[in-house]
Amino acid sequence: MRDLFRDTQWLAVNSATVKAWSLPQLIDGCQRAGITAIAPWRDIVQACGIEKAGSLIRNAGLEVSCLCRGGMFTAPDMAGRRAALDDNRRAVEEAAGIGARCLVLIAGGLPKDSKDLAGAHEQVRDGIAALLPHARDAGVPLAIEPLHPMTAADRACVNTLGHANDLCDELGEGLGIALDVYHVWWDSDLPRQIERAGQRIITYHVCDWLVPTRDLVFDRGMPGDGVIDLKGIRAMVEATGYAGHCDVEIFSTQNWWKRDPDEVLRICKERHRSVV
Amino acid sequence: MRDLFRDTQWLAVNSATVKAWSLPQLIDGCQRAGITAIAPWRDIVQACGIEKAGSLIRNAGLEVSCLCRGGMFTAPDMAGRRAALDDNRRAVEEAAGIGARCLVLIAGGLPKDSKDLAGAHEQVRDGIAALLPHARDAGVPLAIEPLHPMTAADRACVNTLGHANDLCDELGEGLGIALDVYHVWWDSDLPRQIERAGQRIITYHVCDWLVPTRDLVFDRGMPGDGVIDLKGIRAMVEATGYAGHCDVEIFSTQNWWKRDPDEVLRICKERHRSVV
Repeated sequence: MRDLFRDTQWLAVNSATVKAWSLPQLIDGCQRAGITAIAPWRDIVQACGIEKAGSLIRNAGLEVSCLCRGGMFTAPDMAGRRAALDDNRRAVEEAAGIGARCLVLIAGGLPKDSKDLAGAHEQVRDGIAALLPHARDAGVPLAIEPLHPMTAADRACVNTLGHANDLCDELGEGLGIALDVYHVWWDSDLPRQIERAGQRIITYHVCDWLVPTRDLVFDRGMPGDGVIDLKGIRAMVEATGYAGHCDVEIFSTQNWWKRDPDEVLRICKERHRSVV
Repeated sequence: MRDLFRDTQWLAVNSATVKAWSLPQLIDGCQRAGITAIAPWRDIVQACGIEKAGSLIRNAGLEVSCLCRGGMFTAPDMAGRRAALDDNRRAVEEAAGIGARCLVLIAGGLPKDSKDLAGAHEQVRDGIAALLPHARDAGVPLAIEPLHPMTAADRACVNTLGHANDLCDELGEGLGIALDVYHVWWDSDLPRQIERAGQRIITYHVCDWLVPTRDLVFDRGMPGDGVIDLKGIRAMVEATGYAGHCDVEIFSTQNWWKRDPDEVLRICKERHRSVV
């Protein structure tokens, strides 16, 4: 098997990693760094305007590994769930407009004042099911991303690759998986579930788990600075035939977000070669 | 089925909830509050002396739902693992000395400078296997406690009830499970794994998951203040025939540890009746 990820052409930079930058700045920065793919969040795409965003990206010759992110399907009432669905339809349009390989979905947490986790799981399943026909029509694969269990209450109640696989089993064509090592590295069932996922893994994200971790959301590490066996997980993902990008996504209020974004890109590129 | 947990006689107070207290203070406080069971940590038992601790507890007519905690089996070398085993043997003696119904074990995280999660899992399995004969001889059931996945790196690499069940399957008699809702509430597989665990659940702990959670270790909530479906999980645990205590264990540097311990016990008792 080709050593896919080592080659710089397989590196994608997630816009969350260089949060200070607009989309035009991200595009310029990647060109300066010789990075050929990006994974933008919707905020910078919307700020730029979809049409202009698509044209800037195409003119720069960049690939878009994924658009981050849709989802957040759970809500206390039908109006809230309909609003989420409408927003997700717009996210599909945005993904199509910039030529993203997929739209990443995170589930959403427990609705406000609810303790009904099984009900939240149903809302997520129903939300994805309702979005899928639109996504299939637009030719945009959806990628459900299992998030770390520590986000179950307030951000995402799909927390294991096993649960994501179950959703794919149930909902069928057009739904795949966004696998981020940060969220799943701890799972004793991970090897089995990656094998089960197989071709469903359509986008792959890396960062690292720091010891200690000082914040449940904003204290992710640069690959190599933490304890995740990045090469071991990569080997399992490659064994499924995965041939997409390796997307470096780091939330880090106290470290990486404070640094010069050009320096951050340089280090992402080095680490992608050496430790991912 | 009897409504086991509602009755105050099924409430046990974990010493971590009233961390300022010594064992004699905890015993006195529980007697003042009309609470009939405790779950001490080893530090306050050791500070008191095992023999004196046992005699104080027996004289007060208190039950000991469990001793917290042994485990921490993982280490970078054999000397470290042997030291852990020696310490666990002492923990078994302590549990026997105070008449604890079981000894709670947490796994231990990745050894220093290791990214080998599967290797850590093996060390845990081997450590429990080595401890079991001693625990069986002493008549002390061991209770492996799956800890939240956010603790996998530095405290415990057994993070799901499924993994704990696998260990019980493999290691057999003398090993059961400590189920703490805080660590497992998020798991979509929980209902199935509780049913699978059945009679293996030998101690049951409650607190609550706060939104937001501001610290990965020390920001647990009083039952009722968070999002965990305590009654739902209790019903599943009761359905296995569980007839032990319900142990309130709260780590809370910023709130409960700052309050008057007598007030904390009063609120534990109220919440145990109303929301657990």
